Amino acid sequence: MGKQKKFVEEITAMDVDFAQWYTDVVKKADLVDYGSVRGSMIIRPYGYAIWENIRDVLDGKIKETGHENVYMPLFIPESLLQKEKDHIEGFAPEVAWVTHGGEEQLHERLCVRPTSEILFCEHYANIIHSYRDLPKLYNQWSNVVRWEKTTRPFLRSLEFLWQEGHTCHADEQDAMEETLKMLDVYATVCEEFLAVPVLKGQKTEKEKFAGAVSTYTIESLMHDGKALQSGTSHYLGTGFAQSFGIQYSDQNGDLQHVHQTSWGITTRLIGAMIMVHGDDRGLVVPPRIAPTQVMIVPIAQHKEGVLDRAYELKEQLSGLARVDIDASDKMPGWKFNEYEMKGIPVRLEIGPKDIEKGNAVLARRDTGEKEIVSINELAERIPKLLVEIQNNLFIKAKEHCESKTSVAKNMEELKQALTDNPGFVKGMWCGSMACEEFIKEVTSATSRCIPFQQDHVADTCMCCGEKAEKLVFWAKAY
Amino acid sequence: MGKQKKFVEEITAMDVDFAQWYTDVVKKADLVDYGSVRGSMIIRPYGYAIWENIRDVLDGKIKETGHENVYMPLFIPESLLQKEKDHIEGFAPEVAWVTHGGEEQLHERLCVRPTSEILFCEHYANIIHSYRDLPKLYNQWSNVVRWEKTTRPFLRSLEFLWQEGHTCHADEQDAMEETLKMLDVYATVCEEFLAVPVLKGQKTEKEKFAGAVSTYTIESLMHDGKALQSGTSHYLGTGFAQSFGIQYSDQNGDLQHVHQTSWGITTRLIGAMIMVHGDDRGLVVPPRIAPTQVMIVPIAQHKEGVLDRAYELKEQLSGLARVDIDASDKMPGWKFNEYEMKGIPVRLEIGPKDIEKGNAVLARRDTGEKEIVSINELAERIPKLLVEIQNNLFIKAKEHCESKTSVAKNMEELKQALTDNPGFVKGMWCGSMACEEFIKEVTSATSRCIPFQQDHVADTCMCCGEKAEKLVFWAKAY
Repeated sequence: MGKQKKFVEEITAMDVDFAQWYTDVVKKADLVDYGSVRGSMIIRPYGYAIWENIRDVLDGKIKETGHENVYMPLFIPESLLQKEKDHIEGFAPEVAWVTHGGEEQLHERLCVRPTSEILFCEHYANIIHSYRDLPKLYNQWSNVVRWEKTTRPFLRSLEFLWQEGHTCHADEQDAMEETLKMLDVYATVCEEFLAVPVLKGQKTEKEKFAGAVSTYTIESLMHDGKALQSGTSHYLGTGFAQSFGIQYSDQNGDLQHVHQTSWGITTRLIGAMIMVHGDDRGLVVPPRIAPTQVMIVPIAQHKEGVLDRAYELKEQLSGLARVDIDASDKMPGWKFNEYEMKGIPVRLEIGPKDIEKGNAVLARRDTGEKEIVSINELAERIPKLLVEIQNNLFIKAKEHCESKTSVAKNMEELKQALTDNPGFVKGMWCGSMACEEFIKEVTSATSRCIPFQQDHVADTCMCCGEKAEKLVFWAKAY
Repeated sequence: MGKQKKFVEEITAMDVDFAQWYTDVVKKADLVDYGSVRGSMIIRPYGYAIWENIRDVLDGKIKETGHENVYMPLFIPESLLQKEKDHIEGFAPEVAWVTHGGEEQLHERLCVRPTSEILFCEHYANIIHSYRDLPKLYNQWSNVVRWEKTTRPFLRSLEFLWQEGHTCHADEQDAMEETLKMLDVYATVCEEFLAVPVLKGQKTEKEKFAGAVSTYTIESLMHDGKALQSGTSHYLGTGFAQSFGIQYSDQNGDLQHVHQTSWGITTRLIGAMIMVHGDDRGLVVPPRIAPTQVMIVPIAQHKEGVLDRAYELKEQLSGLARVDIDASDKMPGWKFNEYEMKGIPVRLEIGPKDIEKGNAVLARRDTGEKEIVSINELAERIPKLLVEIQNNLFIKAKEHCESKTSVAKNMEELKQALTDNPGFVKGMWCGSMACEEFIKEVTSATSRCIPFQQDHVADTCMCCGEKAEKLVFWAKAY
């Protein structure tokens, strides 16, 4: 137990310093390491395996909904980037520029993609001609670069991995349906796979994507009461299509501009998973995206028959769950700590006494509970237990989010709520950007979204006191 | 038939201009489009789906052999790149440099990775300490950039997709086993999935990877008799480990440098597939990597029952093969041409007369043969037919390669062989770089590899006439 304690002490307690806890966890759970370029991250095998699971689930849903994957170039010529003014203004401060290729200086600078609207638009202008070519439903999995000043692994880094969907439609209705459909797909992946509850809504004008008509978002609440924008879906209207000349001839032979959407989620979701489910013992990975769902730890493995039985169990269970075994010569206590730090949902302990009785011990990572199960019943129990853990994580997170959601009718109540119970604050908003900016200046809280599910908590704007009809969720955010 | 002919005429015949044929096929089969940056390519849905299939097969084998996926940063600081002299000399002429981030000029230029040995080495130096940490078997799927002067889609482009394996081992023997094991994995993927026969061997000193002790390669022969390096695996020795200080304490507590390997295959394999199997009607995609293996084309689909029966068939066959249907209002002849251009292995035609008789027509893309099959037997016939096509493509390619392999005892015979029957030329080599360079200068042929399977075709070097013991395969190459 001495060793176990020591290991635990290596990470900062959440309530002492949440930011340091986060940094400790991502390092100690072997999710990332730092690269030599400031703000860049190395995604280590365990972190990448989690990403692969998220990616595979989402990729399946993207394909099921009729999208095709493509791959666009990494570089965007500066002149091309200039074509959409709002877009370039939004992204210019945070792009990396290539100026030399081999020994030569380039005639024109190339931007390393921060997002690929521009490239998709140029391509669409080439391949879309008729209404028969619509809709065009493309998606890309790639890396993107944003020259951020302050960085944190997964949450905000110089480079990250993501998918970006880019679609073209004949009219606004079709494009808007797509925008909201993909937001729903994101919500499903977050809630059903990452066990992260989300709030769906629309971004304000101030917070919308550079170049979009409207931006929709899923927002989730972290353990420390800060919000995290976890996925966005944009209706781009015909603005890009006009800049890039993406036109089709409709059924009457008339030329029309296409209506576009774009939507993306990133490796940031791993950050959400960490900060929603993690605890003072480290990571807690939801079973449905856990690279290893059950870790078998043999006890007194030097004793005859223990290792054989443990490997037999691994074999028997391998069709039912993602099972691994640690038969290294490390002490069981050390192994317990390591897999708790890594958040593996279930630990299966098996030692000579258990074998004698035909039993094994199942330890849940989420609650810390242990149960003794007959070996013969493991095949039935483990899949059920994984479902229970998955559900429990979601329910706990949902309850946490609800308990951290306050209502404020004026600025005083807003400040009070943010101090007493940091989290989401529901407050009415008159719609003016001035109020939004003032609130941010005074409280550091930003408008997270205008939720689809509206609620009338007051008659007047929390800030100016004028008549207000929109409910907004406010929070300090990552 | 008029339409059909016209469509075919749109691509250049292979024997008229092979390079133009290639360019036509990649465009007409909707594999790629050109990006606005010279030499960059857009991989379109059909091309990307083929890449996904290759990637998934290879990724499975990489994991089966104990490797873990990771993700390293895109950028490498110039100072870090300088640490391994041979490596930087090899790559410096072809890297893209980032000099500005946002509005600021960087203190140090960042290279956009042309390959990631450097980053893996830096990381390994941080995480490897003891013999218990070895071997470390990492792999990465990513994009890389090489500032090439002359580019062609898939074969040589400014940016391409690939995987790069980077491993560390306790000793040379273990590292060498790894190097050759991964070469075997590549050969298996090429031969069994892409139906592309390969020649396995070692690269000469002149042709080896910048920084490697030895490089191993799989070489394949294209339809036009030019060779294509299709995958390489390098034994890096301890050179990088010394430059980066990657050391471990062995069982005696003594510090040792690790022995490293690296190995990669790229989207170039799609180029190999095109140039090995394609014909004057377009692409021919081997069934095992074909996104669509069977395309159902309804005939006279406006007639009652035809479309219903066609969709029923799609449903019935969908568990047995990757089946799609084209029920658009285009003419069947147009559809035939389109799917021939795209190289879909099997076309299934079904019309009112067929339905009456309980039959369907199966048309093979590889041989053009048609067979009438009872609808009840399709479920049995189609999987078999796909295997037959896969095997036939491999056998044809193997025969082509053998028929294009000559033997030369001296320079005259080499020149003659390259003119009369362009392809591989087997010739003895004394081992001197001068001879190798002379041969290249005079004939444009390069040493492709020293094949593992040696053959003694003469006693003396093809070039200098001195005693020679090594057989080398020579060819003009992409």
